[in-house]
Amino acid sequence: MKLDYDIIIIGAGSAGLSALREIKKHTDNFVIINDGPWGTTCARVGCMPSKALIESANAFYRRHAFEAFGIIGTEKLSIDKKRVFERVRALRDHFVSGIIKDTESLGNRAVSARARLLGPNHVQIGDKKLHAKRIILAPGSRPIIPPEWQKLGKRLLTSDTLFDQETIPDRMAVIGMGPIGIEVAQALSRIGVQVYGFSRNPLIAGITDPLINQTITGLISREFPLFLGNKVEVVSNAENSAITIMADDNPIEVDGVFAALGRQPNVDDLGLDTLGIAVNDQGIPNVNPNTMQIEDLPIFLAGDANNHLPLLHEAADEGYIAGVNASANSFTCFQRRTPLAITFSDPNIVTVGASFQQLQNKSICVGQVSFENQGRARVAQLNKGMLRIYADSKNGKLLGSELCAPAGEHLAHLLALAISQSLTVWDLLQIPFYHPVLEEGLRTALRDLVSKLPPGMNRSDLSACPGFNTDIQGTE
Amino acid sequence: MKLDYDIIIIGAGSAGLSALREIKKHTDNFVIINDGPWGTTCARVGCMPSKALIESANAFYRRHAFEAFGIIGTEKLSIDKKRVFERVRALRDHFVSGIIKDTESLGNRAVSARARLLGPNHVQIGDKKLHAKRIILAPGSRPIIPPEWQKLGKRLLTSDTLFDQETIPDRMAVIGMGPIGIEVAQALSRIGVQVYGFSRNPLIAGITDPLINQTITGLISREFPLFLGNKVEVVSNAENSAITIMADDNPIEVDGVFAALGRQPNVDDLGLDTLGIAVNDQGIPNVNPNTMQIEDLPIFLAGDANNHLPLLHEAADEGYIAGVNASANSFTCFQRRTPLAITFSDPNIVTVGASFQQLQNKSICVGQVSFENQGRARVAQLNKGMLRIYADSKNGKLLGSELCAPAGEHLAHLLALAISQSLTVWDLLQIPFYHPVLEEGLRTALRDLVSKLPPGMNRSDLSACPGFNTDIQGTE
Repeated sequence: MKLDYDIIIIGAGSAGLSALREIKKHTDNFVIINDGPWGTTCARVGCMPSKALIESANAFYRRHAFEAFGIIGTEKLSIDKKRVFERVRALRDHFVSGIIKDTESLGNRAVSARARLLGPNHVQIGDKKLHAKRIILAPGSRPIIPPEWQKLGKRLLTSDTLFDQETIPDRMAVIGMGPIGIEVAQALSRIGVQVYGFSRNPLIAGITDPLINQTITGLISREFPLFLGNKVEVVSNAENSAITIMADDNPIEVDGVFAALGRQPNVDDLGLDTLGIAVNDQGIPNVNPNTMQIEDLPIFLAGDANNHLPLLHEAADEGYIAGVNASANSFTCFQRRTPLAITFSDPNIVTVGASFQQLQNKSICVGQVSFENQGRARVAQLNKGMLRIYADSKNGKLLGSELCAPAGEHLAHLLALAISQSLTVWDLLQIPFYHPVLEEGLRTALRDLVSKLPPGMNRSDLSACPGFNTDIQGTE
Repeated sequence: MKLDYDIIIIGAGSAGLSALREIKKHTDNFVIINDGPWGTTCARVGCMPSKALIESANAFYRRHAFEAFGIIGTEKLSIDKKRVFERVRALRDHFVSGIIKDTESLGNRAVSARARLLGPNHVQIGDKKLHAKRIILAPGSRPIIPPEWQKLGKRLLTSDTLFDQETIPDRMAVIGMGPIGIEVAQALSRIGVQVYGFSRNPLIAGITDPLINQTITGLISREFPLFLGNKVEVVSNAENSAITIMADDNPIEVDGVFAALGRQPNVDDLGLDTLGIAVNDQGIPNVNPNTMQIEDLPIFLAGDANNHLPLLHEAADEGYIAGVNASANSFTCFQRRTPLAITFSDPNIVTVGASFQQLQNKSICVGQVSFENQGRARVAQLNKGMLRIYADSKNGKLLGSELCAPAGEHLAHLLALAISQSLTVWDLLQIPFYHPVLEEGLRTALRDLVSKLPPGMNRSDLSACPGFNTDIQGTE
């Protein structure tokens, strides 16, 4: 191993690999150091395996619509949890192997080791001290587990261990109803596990709009019990016995616990203390989100580890920004994308642009639609959910939206484009809304929004031709 | 019945009713005259019942993915065609009743009769001659049936009769592979009818891009035989016997024929000849698509009947434009929307913006993606299809796209917004593409497009912050 590099990358996850792609354009004198298994959080234990589980679960759950559709024999269907998880692992292994190929070809420029900073330009691995002009830190994150839950042993699952299970206990508590908790709880419930959902936070899946939260908690409660808003206590007397979950004075007995309390940045043992800079109470230093630089040091902190936006597409952007800047003498300040968070539940749960909470002290108008009577949603037996969209009441500019709706993940991208282009409600109403589509539900919300804007701002969604002056023509 | 009106509307379909909504804001002195059943083409025999049929058919077809998903017992599923069509009719009746309510409240301002023009301001119904300052013609369209097919009697179905059937013959020829032909053929095939698809046109569902056509015809051919590019002859010797379809020297025996040769405007007996203006070989006069006015007369022709864009959302726009202008002294010229056509097949088939054919003599670059290996599509067992996107090679401005892809109807609206806002490929690449979503397939096509633009135009999809100047910072 060499000891002197242009760039050292610590962490070969989505952020680190994204940085690597940029760095390789500029130098061969780099090393990427990874602790633990290679392959990204996303492919190994995150986005991809969870979606594989969800697709099986939703395909099976769809049988409840079959009678309405005229399909017979539904009661004969069952799902083989073992095969579901085998498929999850087969797909996971496929995606992971695609990612690992990228680093395998690097030879000794890819190193398996735990790395620790020794200062702004130095890294320790094993007994070696490496030097680099620039260092990119992308050590990722891990599920939060309260120390007192360790006593649950193998009865405690997290996203790190769930997808490797051969069997899932019959009764599971899912604790934490953020995006991961909701996705896993609903999917396990739909493949036949008796699920109980718990969260101290009364708002689920990152939603901040009370009406959307009310709608989605109502829908999910029809599938499995939700206990929201109370402290959750896990009581386990003996190993391998049932576990009692206390919340809301109502003891619930389960056989296993899935912890979905969020993720914590892997910065504890990274040596950030050697940089001589302040860190916050999570141990994270000041990072410029537009350059990924830590303070004014030649070090960048990208991806989940900076606890900014622990989402794949943001990690990839942060890796890109860190990679570009680490390779350059002068740093570029990059614009970040319109915020977007999707929970792949059914219906999908989405926050795009500014959240309801972020707009609380702004002068906004809100348009909304329920999907219960939306035409296409009814025809497809998918008529549930609600969408709310927020616009600046001064000018109708679209600011954000929260929703739980069929095809919400697709509506999310349409809204993200409108918001990222600073469009008004009338601009978005100018597109063709085909018939019959779920996007017509969005149009209903947009028209509702227009009706709530101050009088005088109401105008048609068809515009007059540019340069057109009305003129008296063709009368009798 | 009065004899003198401000406005007469002929036709109470989607265009006529859309015009009515505007007119009611300005005058009570109108009459809307409808020939045949009330309720729109869309709700009675078009968009809505076809989608109800398709949703049942696709839900049943989805069983082919069940084994992969770990679902057991699929072979026990069957579909009850009778119940499928009962549901289609129940939904249809629901949607039609909602529409009819709008006109029922009009009393004697809604008249069931055949109307015929007597000149620019006069209409004959029965033995009465009505006068109006303005007339809106919205008589709609009907399926084209070659006269020689009439001999098939009840064995000949069209969209006018399909949804009222109690039973569907075991073997059906669907003749005409435009959007309606493809939708009906695939849906009937998926509920167990032996379908044969025929079309003289080698391009199906309105696609003009040879690669997209090749992809979708390949996919559909896996479900039922397609005979494309040859003249189709229907031979029927005796009533109630089998019908022989000749195409490609290969006689095919069927029990029924679904005619999907397109729709013809209901202008034959409308009295357009009394206006003293030229008509084209389809009998349609010159209509300004931005005002809906016929020549310089006080008459408007809106919806399917002008054969411009026989699509619900366009008919609604045309009715709106005609309604606004018929109510005003001075006419407004309205901008029309970005072209959009969706065939609700699986995968969806879409043309948005300019078609490949329309761009044939333009300097364009094409980006493309196959969905066969797209991540989310694989996980969802929906990995088939292709998307191609066309941009101006001078500046990267998005011009149009043709595609057959999972969630194509949703990608269509995203592309429609980008095109309607005159965005470039880089503008669209600036949105967050969440992970894992089908929109990432579109991103792959956009990046492919960027790679094909002239050298020097390639730039990152993350933009530098506005007003940002790079500066040397924080090096060793």
